[in-house]
Amino acid sequence: MEFSSKLLQSAVDDIAQLPGIGKRTALRLALHILKLPKSATNQLANSLIDFREKIKFCESCNNLSDSIICDICSNDKREKETLCVVQDIRDVIAVENTQQFKGYYHVLGGVISPIDGVGPQDLKIDSLIEKVKKGEIKEIIFALSSTMEAETTIFYLHKLLLKYKIVISVIAKGISVGDELEYTDEITLGRSIMKRVPYESST
Amino acid sequence: MEFSSKLLQSAVDDIAQLPGIGKRTALRLALHILKLPKSATNQLANSLIDFREKIKFCESCNNLSDSIICDICSNDKREKETLCVVQDIRDVIAVENTQQFKGYYHVLGGVISPIDGVGPQDLKIDSLIEKVKKGEIKEIIFALSSTMEAETTIFYLHKLLLKYKIVISVIAKGISVGDELEYTDEITLGRSIMKRVPYESST
Repeated sequence: MEFSSKLLQSAVDDIAQLPGIGKRTALRLALHILKLPKSATNQLANSLIDFREKIKFCESCNNLSDSIICDICSNDKREKETLCVVQDIRDVIAVENTQQFKGYYHVLGGVISPIDGVGPQDLKIDSLIEKVKKGEIKEIIFALSSTMEAETTIFYLHKLLLKYKIVISVIAKGISVGDELEYTDEITLGRSIMKRVPYESST
Repeated sequence: MEFSSKLLQSAVDDIAQLPGIGKRTALRLALHILKLPKSATNQLANSLIDFREKIKFCESCNNLSDSIICDICSNDKREKETLCVVQDIRDVIAVENTQQFKGYYHVLGGVISPIDGVGPQDLKIDSLIEKVKKGEIKEIIFALSSTMEAETTIFYLHKLLLKYKIVISVIAKGISVGDELEYTDEITLGRSIMKRVPYESST
């Protein structure tokens, strides 16, 4: 796509560098920006620069943070006994949004995946072990995706953690809330039947 | 969606202001930006600011332009005799990309649409008439969409332009190149049959 304006061309080219945004969408976004006041464009641009310049990774949990230690890790009202191990930053947000977890997090930064060239040495495993060694943690919850790579990672970490006296849990797998059985895939449904749990009237 | 980092929160909120981009996509874009070098973020931010600050509307054709008169209008190698009237900037780009038109453009800035409160006074019609009055233009081509509003606009402009000795054309309507008859809508196909043209072996 060629434009007669160089300013438009470079704006569109730069927007289209972002993942999932083609030239046509980039053009639509650029033309939308024209309809907004200049201050809105400045705000968008500055918050991108600010974000990129100032954001840090929390030295304790590896989550995105505004300071050296993130808001979650520096909140001493949370439960010290439970640590939730997740794959990446997005998963911290997902778990936080459930409001069902009050402990601390540890972001691995990926899962073991030989096909993608990711081995244990590429993940934040040493710092996880260090945390466990301090003795405050009583339970580690693995909140990882339900993929082969995540299962491998849990298996690997489980072996490393066996010698410490802590409970190791994984999040429950089964049919989603609201799912119709008819449309549930066979493997999930089969597993849900095998791993059935005693009925509790409150759930 | 709540984030523990204020920097992330404001970046996501600002990106999600753009049309068609929700919070989830905004988060994905923000996390993608983190993977890029800082210079790439600066370039994106600066080209947005530059674009918004410096872009102009061409005083001759109303197209987006880097200067008072756009590159197309200031190119004196184009054909002075033909003027292509389009609805908006995107249509200039669409027609230019065909490389089939060598004349000049006039961007109306919309079409007459009473339901949206757009009347003739909201469009760049006076400057179109001024151009025609100069006497250099021999043909006006309406390259507007095939909608009721566009047809109304052509009808209105046609009446205004009747008294000047110029040819008034509209772009051809019919089945698209590569279309299968079976899947063409009835109205388009019916019209294509009514408006059939003599066969030429070169087309």
